[in-house]
Amino acid sequence: MDRPAELDDVTARGYTADKDVYLKRLRRIEGQVRGLQRMVSEDAYCIDVLTQVSAVTKALQSVALGLLEEHLGHCVGSAAHQGEEALEAKLKEASDAIARLVRS
Amino acid sequence: MDRPAELDDVTARGYTADKDVYLKRLRRIEGQVRGLQRMVSEDAYCIDVLTQVSAVTKALQSVALGLLEEHLGHCVGSAAHQGEEALEAKLKEASDAIARLVRS
Amino acid sequence: MDRPAELDDVTARGYTADKDVYLKRLRRIEGQVRGLQRMVSEDAYCIDVLTQVSAVTKALQSVALGLLEEHLGHCVGSAAHQGEEALEAKLKEASDAIARLVRS
Amino acid sequence: MDRPAELDDVTARGYTADKDVYLKRLRRIEGQVRGLQRMVSEDAYCIDVLTQVSAVTKALQSVALGLLEEHLGHCVGSAAHQGEEALEAKLKEASDAIARLVRS
Repeated sequence: MDRPAELDDVTARGYTADKDVYLKRLRRIEGQVRGLQRMVSEDAYCIDVLTQVSAVTKALQSVALGLLEEHLGHCVGSAAHQGEEALEAKLKEASDAIARLVRS
Repeated sequence: MDRPAELDDVTARGYTADKDVYLKRLRRIEGQVRGLQRMVSEDAYCIDVLTQVSAVTKALQSVALGLLEEHLGHCVGSAAHQGEEALEAKLKEASDAIARLVRS
Repeated sequence: MDRPAELDDVTARGYTADKDVYLKRLRRIEGQVRGLQRMVSEDAYCIDVLTQVSAVTKALQSVALGLLEEHLGHCVGSAAHQGEEALEAKLKEASDAIARLVRS
Repeated sequence: MDRPAELDDVTARGYTADKDVYLKRLRRIEGQVRGLQRMVSEDAYCIDVLTQVSAVTKALQSVALGLLEEHLGHCVGSAAHQGEEALEAKLKEASDAIARLVRS
């Protein structure tokens, strides 16, 4: 949106190439969350609300798994060429993120 | 928002009393999803995006668990007084919703 | 196994009728966990071990969802006839168990 | 146990060094699953059985996360030195395993 121009130079993020794809998916998720508000505000049946919550959760997890795969490819891949220590730090960080996803 | 007036009569939904609480939580989740869009659009670090996705997922699950508890209390509770068959149908429906939550 | 005879009187457990089914499934899960030990002890490929861990986790969740459905039917159903307070206590307990399942 | 001697040469598995630690944890998980059988066979209270199932699931996930971290370090790390294609194949495989864990 009002992203500063200098950021167009950034290429370090693994997901930069697919940024538009992720933004589109996140906008759809935003729409789904607004749909949830509408359901609650119109007293929709609980079970229907729960079904929609599960759908949003799955959509979010799918975004997370996509970002993670690209992160492992770009950031961890490049750390592997910077030596043992850099790789280990990146892997610890990625593993912690995976643990948070698995447990959330 | 533009909820039709006739819906004000509805009292059958277990979460109706706490509707404002749920709407508030869902609006905050909507804000978090917009925050995710901003992060991606500004090329935030992958791991930070993943941490935020985990936070949104947890917030959604927490809404789901709250709705489910109230649903079990109101809808399943009242079905228990309507006889074996009604209760069984409600429980099957609730169990399916729980399975979707556990697996999502 | 060496279950005391007086327990044969117990009929309050929702899953008692299907006990043999659950025991059979749990024995198969035990076998799968032993299979995991064999895989690790024979240096099986990590990804194959992880695939098997996911299978065991799914099998355990499936047992849990089955037990939960029967619990909601028997215990919660009968609490509904014992009055508001008994029902509420049972539902709080069940909801906490569901939350643990969703988050594990 | 009766692992053939020639396997002692294998060093390719990321978790080989910690094999005893993983075996110990898996043996404890096996004991927990036998404990579940005992609980069911003695008509333990549903909710207590569910609590124990959640504990076993968490223990299994924790084994999986440990294996995965070591796998990413050893196998993916070494694939990074074998060229783009090898790395990509390993990452695809690891990402699929992560997706199975997140969804299980």
